[in-house]
Amino acid sequence: MTRAFQETALAADIAAGLARVGTLFDSQLSSVFPAVNELCRYVERYRGKMLRPTLVLVSGLAFTDDGEPLRAEHDIVAATVEMIHMATLVHDDVLDEAAVRRRGETVNFLRGNETAVMLGDYLISNAFHLCSRAGNPALNLRLGEVTNTLCEGELVQLSRRHDLTLDEHTYFEILRRKTAVLVGASCELGTMLANGSAAEVAAMRAFGEHLGIAFQIQDDLLDLLGDEATVGKSIGRDLEKGKLTLPMILHIAGSSGSLRVAAMDAIEAKDGASLRRVLARSGSIDAAREKAISIVEEAKALLPATKRAHSRELLLELADRVVARNH
Amino acid sequence: MTRAFQETALAADIAAGLARVGTLFDSQLSSVFPAVNELCRYVERYRGKMLRPTLVLVSGLAFTDDGEPLRAEHDIVAATVEMIHMATLVHDDVLDEAAVRRRGETVNFLRGNETAVMLGDYLISNAFHLCSRAGNPALNLRLGEVTNTLCEGELVQLSRRHDLTLDEHTYFEILRRKTAVLVGASCELGTMLANGSAAEVAAMRAFGEHLGIAFQIQDDLLDLLGDEATVGKSIGRDLEKGKLTLPMILHIAGSSGSLRVAAMDAIEAKDGASLRRVLARSGSIDAAREKAISIVEEAKALLPATKRAHSRELLLELADRVVARNH
Repeated sequence: MTRAFQETALAADIAAGLARVGTLFDSQLSSVFPAVNELCRYVERYRGKMLRPTLVLVSGLAFTDDGEPLRAEHDIVAATVEMIHMATLVHDDVLDEAAVRRRGETVNFLRGNETAVMLGDYLISNAFHLCSRAGNPALNLRLGEVTNTLCEGELVQLSRRHDLTLDEHTYFEILRRKTAVLVGASCELGTMLANGSAAEVAAMRAFGEHLGIAFQIQDDLLDLLGDEATVGKSIGRDLEKGKLTLPMILHIAGSSGSLRVAAMDAIEAKDGASLRRVLARSGSIDAAREKAISIVEEAKALLPATKRAHSRELLLELADRVVARNH
Repeated sequence: MTRAFQETALAADIAAGLARVGTLFDSQLSSVFPAVNELCRYVERYRGKMLRPTLVLVSGLAFTDDGEPLRAEHDIVAATVEMIHMATLVHDDVLDEAAVRRRGETVNFLRGNETAVMLGDYLISNAFHLCSRAGNPALNLRLGEVTNTLCEGELVQLSRRHDLTLDEHTYFEILRRKTAVLVGASCELGTMLANGSAAEVAAMRAFGEHLGIAFQIQDDLLDLLGDEATVGKSIGRDLEKGKLTLPMILHIAGSSGSLRVAAMDAIEAKDGASLRRVLARSGSIDAAREKAISIVEEAKALLPATKRAHSRELLLELADRVVARNH
């Protein structure tokens, strides 16, 4: 966030909102069992960018009159989407056999897959319970739909591991489901709870889904190109687990002859250095990066007029940060 | 079910209800992705006793006037509790590294832990989504509470694996959470949706929780004593995974000297044959069996008066079957 931003009243609103969300998050997970609390305290370390709750709050403020507060349901939805996200991180690390997340050891690495599976379940269950506390059936229905879609995305991705015929269309459909719908729902529900119009709700949802897709492309690029010290989590997992990502898909579709074969061989041999070299040579890494940037530009163009100019600026800045980040 | 029972109008009502629940269950899980549908068709084989949905429907009929139908919400809750149960089976098989369930290979055995984790998540998510379709926030809130409790039970059990100091009190607390609350909620919500009084709802919940505890003791006895061909699933998992169950706990607490040491050695060595021999000698297996039977008797004594005599008889019979079963 730029210096100027941090000084606005809006930034103060968001910071105060995120603090409330953090408190709600912690109190929802508190258990009578010390063993459960210890695990929850551990995964709370995973809370990093808080992108999804931030989007709920900023989207809410964007359609709320100046000086009016957000609704209590905004905090509940913000904590719920973060809890859903956290559950997916815990189970993803099991799926990816990842050992490092947010510069610390993952739950599966530290406590074994069994505890990680059950802790993820505890987070999912608490997310739904927390959401139910709002007493608004529309929220439960929508978030249930979102998590169904998310799991379908993960299942389809699993079914296509080690499949060199995965095409760009299917890759984007997987991304939309496993990442973008939850980011889209964060913007959508924040707007809906602020009584945004149907058109505003739809536009904000589309804005969020675009952001989610660009976010995941950037994540995949960091997994391919980043180093663990900077990214702060296990990298090279996609190659290790046979997950084709955009630069690989663009390369296989767009090249031929020995260049194409070299990439496919490197993927099958899980040889990251050779793969990066050949993808750079064909320009596929740059092409994937440009694709992410152009999706962010589309997102920004989708952003509707808001009641507060500042929240619109913040949404635009959040969009840019999705592709500018290196962790 | 006795022959006489099958001929009652009530039995016909239950059979028709379970058929509706099966249809609802299948339609909820249907996906646009063939890979997802194939997995769901596979786990539908796990549907066996249908104890939980049966309890929702019978509890509902018990407090509904003769000739009056159940509410649509009864079917939704019945399918939801079965879906939650199914999700726990899929994840339990991952935790237990079990290869066989319902006489077939488990998802984790056939497709790997990763797919089993994600399929379990898909089932949990769909359970909450299905429940949300009723548009009744009280149902979501209660079932969210139930699954939180369930996960806590599993997490505490995991944290106490290979712990020979596990006492009877903690064992029962784990059982209550991981198994009994869902069975109790099945009876409770079935009664509540039929507009049972607060006292009737509470009594039915207590009846169900007692049943759930007895059910789990019987499950643990089958895991210790049964053979895979009869039980139809991987057995000996508790010993393999360091889970102390009631006969072991009663033995360790009630015996001394070489008899006590022999059991502890057999547990640590995962030597099922020796363990069964020593537990039989101390009478701990019989004591656990008697405990389950006495909990079923307590359950039956808790059963309130119902509007239909037949549904009360059926509930009593279901209670007896919990401990009479060998699979």
